[in-house]
Amino acid sequence: MAFTFVSGNAFKLKELQEMMGVPVKSINIDLVEIQGEPEEVACAKCRAAQLHVDGPVLIEDSSLCFNALNGMPGVYTKWFVERMGLECLVKILETYRNKAAYAQCIYALSGDNGVVHLFKGVRHGNIVTPRGSTEFGWDSIFEPDGYIQTYAEMTSENKYGISDRSEAFKKLMAHLAQKKYTK
Amino acid sequence: MAFTFVSGNAFKLKELQEMMGVPVKSINIDLVEIQGEPEEVACAKCRAAQLHVDGPVLIEDSSLCFNALNGMPGVYTKWFVERMGLECLVKILETYRNKAAYAQCIYALSGDNGVVHLFKGVRHGNIVTPRGSTEFGWDSIFEPDGYIQTYAEMTSENKYGISDRSEAFKKLMAHLAQKKYTK
Repeated sequence: MAFTFVSGNAFKLKELQEMMGVPVKSINIDLVEIQGEPEEVACAKCRAAQLHVDGPVLIEDSSLCFNALNGMPGVYTKWFVERMGLECLVKILETYRNKAAYAQCIYALSGDNGVVHLFKGVRHGNIVTPRGSTEFGWDSIFEPDGYIQTYAEMTSENKYGISDRSEAFKKLMAHLAQKKYTK
Repeated sequence: MAFTFVSGNAFKLKELQEMMGVPVKSINIDLVEIQGEPEEVACAKCRAAQLHVDGPVLIEDSSLCFNALNGMPGVYTKWFVERMGLECLVKILETYRNKAAYAQCIYALSGDNGVVHLFKGVRHGNIVTPRGSTEFGWDSIFEPDGYIQTYAEMTSENKYGISDRSEAFKKLMAHLAQKKYTK
């Protein structure tokens, strides 16, 4: 594939490679991210990644948005997980009956002339106390609608069938396939 | 004074001017901020401001850190206030007995050779349901230790006597005064 995936997160690389079914050219860099709307954050991250690579770059940004908090902590979730831990993050919702949330993944691919293409996937679900491996971000506290397992409890195959990341991935692949045939 | 204050927040400018007692040269720009530790955020914001101004620039960044959440939402508080409102932000702590928090203000001043000087003020207190004007950020939900008023309920004079911002301001002034006498 004609891009370099830039990420400091080994799990994001693993999922991308498994979904693609082939090794992905990648660079392990923790990029500085901006504050803002998810699309702005992804776009700026892609431009920052571009500074390290010749040719097209791909980055990914994920959010976990609590409906009761009107979409927060969203793009800032990783800081909450790092600082407070998952148990404490779930506890924030204890006061609220509404445990609904959505997971959102954006792939950002740099194109020609400085254009950045965004591919977004969204999966609705609920916030639950951690179940399954707590290795990958907040997978263990997100239970997608229609399932009794958290992302972390699912097999890779099942998760890739339904996740916000796989939805974003499919849109990215469709874009790349179309580009191939129009060139 | 030999700096330009860069901020999109009229209240921050007002407080700075009132504490200085003289008009301050300023530019009204909403700067993009990065995610990270408060010092990193302030430093990057100062460098971003520098791109708009010839000569030394001053910026300010504030955080509201909930002890029960191990310092969160911190530098991201303004996004929570924008999205959820103050009432809902306070409600996050309903589950916790510990309502303690600290307000932190950092002034960042660009110096010679790309150096950025940071001046930090911290004030401990408690998170309360909004009291007083809700115009300036989260002033109405922060009640400093030893007082029965929130920042928003205090007179300017009282607030400037004890606030995290005034502590940071005094350190900034001491630095500028010293610089003046060593030049």
